[in-house]
Amino acid sequence: MPTPFTITRRVEFGDTDMAGIVHFANFFRFMESAETAFLRSLGLTVSWRDAGTKLGFPRVAAACDFLSPARFEDELTIAVTVERVGTKSVTYRHEFTNQRGEAVAVGRITAVFVRHDTDRIESAEIPPEIRTKLEEHLT
Amino acid sequence: MPTPFTITRRVEFGDTDMAGIVHFANFFRFMESAETAFLRSLGLTVSWRDAGTKLGFPRVAAACDFLSPARFEDELTIAVTVERVGTKSVTYRHEFTNQRGEAVAVGRITAVFVRHDTDRIESAEIPPEIRTKLEEHLT
Amino acid sequence: MPTPFTITRRVEFGDTDMAGIVHFANFFRFMESAETAFLRSLGLTVSWRDAGTKLGFPRVAAACDFLSPARFEDELTIAVTVERVGTKSVTYRHEFTNQRGEAVAVGRITAVFVRHDTDRIESAEIPPEIRTKLEEHLT
Amino acid sequence: MPTPFTITRRVEFGDTDMAGIVHFANFFRFMESAETAFLRSLGLTVSWRDAGTKLGFPRVAAACDFLSPARFEDELTIAVTVERVGTKSVTYRHEFTNQRGEAVAVGRITAVFVRHDTDRIESAEIPPEIRTKLEEHLT
Repeated sequence: MPTPFTITRRVEFGDTDMAGIVHFANFFRFMESAETAFLRSLGLTVSWRDAGTKLGFPRVAAACDFLSPARFEDELTIAVTVERVGTKSVTYRHEFTNQRGEAVAVGRITAVFVRHDTDRIESAEIPPEIRTKLEEHLT
Repeated sequence: MPTPFTITRRVEFGDTDMAGIVHFANFFRFMESAETAFLRSLGLTVSWRDAGTKLGFPRVAAACDFLSPARFEDELTIAVTVERVGTKSVTYRHEFTNQRGEAVAVGRITAVFVRHDTDRIESAEIPPEIRTKLEEHLT
Repeated sequence: MPTPFTITRRVEFGDTDMAGIVHFANFFRFMESAETAFLRSLGLTVSWRDAGTKLGFPRVAAACDFLSPARFEDELTIAVTVERVGTKSVTYRHEFTNQRGEAVAVGRITAVFVRHDTDRIESAEIPPEIRTKLEEHLT
Repeated sequence: MPTPFTITRRVEFGDTDMAGIVHFANFFRFMESAETAFLRSLGLTVSWRDAGTKLGFPRVAAACDFLSPARFEDELTIAVTVERVGTKSVTYRHEFTNQRGEAVAVGRITAVFVRHDTDRIESAEIPPEIRTKLEEHLT
């Protein structure tokens, strides 16, 4: 199993809610930024053009289990691994821990590879060179 | 099966992202506002005090499947039903449809009933009078 | 002076921060939704196409003074008036009051009329028929 | 004039809107994170306790001029300086530039020093040791 790709992110004041903890919807933004950084580390991105065609990885599903609260100025580490690479889709697993090593949350995002032809968006097979890069990070 | 509780919500410019559609993390905010409105319709809320003790329903899990894109100025209807009432937790199901009746997304939020005693937060059994109200909305 | 255009908006849980009040950046989202609703009431929008050209009113300046805190479930009224219509720009004034009639915030947004020609964005004179509609709401 | 305090921040996908650029309200979140990092660099924060009293710097005004669009994956530098230290308030100036050195936005936030005694919030004179630190960053 490879070392997971990780980013760290400090909780901002505006990430919290009146319960004094990170608002649950913000974990999905944090996962997205980890996913984008992961793709960037592979030389990929979430939306790009190739020979005039717009390609991308829009999300079709997202889920998160919240294990312990995250608070203002906590330094969260988000470890990204690839849980599954299907023909047309990829599922990422995101593990959040805080600066004390405590598990904070575990989330998943599933993205589908798509091509935009004029106004139509169609799912498509993940090209082999992208698949290879993703599979290197399979857990 | 009872008629589901519904709210409508118009997509705002700031809800969208550069893909021209509602950013996926915002569906979790929309679910929260539907959940809050649902609890309000039952005379409940997400965080309150009873005889000095702080009570509430923080989320422990959230998930959403994105079926078709939602766009600026779409009028989304969110139907909330109760999928499960456990001893200490409740799971809501949120169905999003647009103004053309198309399915946009289906999400779930699981919240746990908690008591805050001084600085400790502990899960607790959902009181019978709240349970009864929630169970009336079981699908 | 005309009756100002107003919308109401209930403060959501996710609008608050750990200080227990609406996070200051969210007032700018609230202003945007009021501005959009105001334009919609005039038969306009913030971004549209006319004979193939993309037109719109992107913001070039925004400001807000925060007078008293807004809290979860407060019902805010936002009154929109037009403070100035320049050759190419318009400045809106947004007055926030709560359900007790207390002043909560006063903000301004200045938007510039633009035309997108291919990849260039250029400011342009506000067309007379739009100007007339905006001027009817001058304070 | 001292070297300004700076942070860098990469624009995330979720920061953008359907116009393909950073949504204007997010500049206020970016300013807040720069302000917080600036205070942290001085050994301060935006909300803390001293001998049982809650102290803090809530914002009373915020403004921003948007000079050129910021896009996904742009690396923004935010330079924070102190524009004014009043008896009870401080005004920060935030200059945003992108990775090409282009001016993106200039914003201001004014925060007031407050003490929370039980349920009352009252503005108070900025303590001398904090004032000294802030004044070292006056432009």
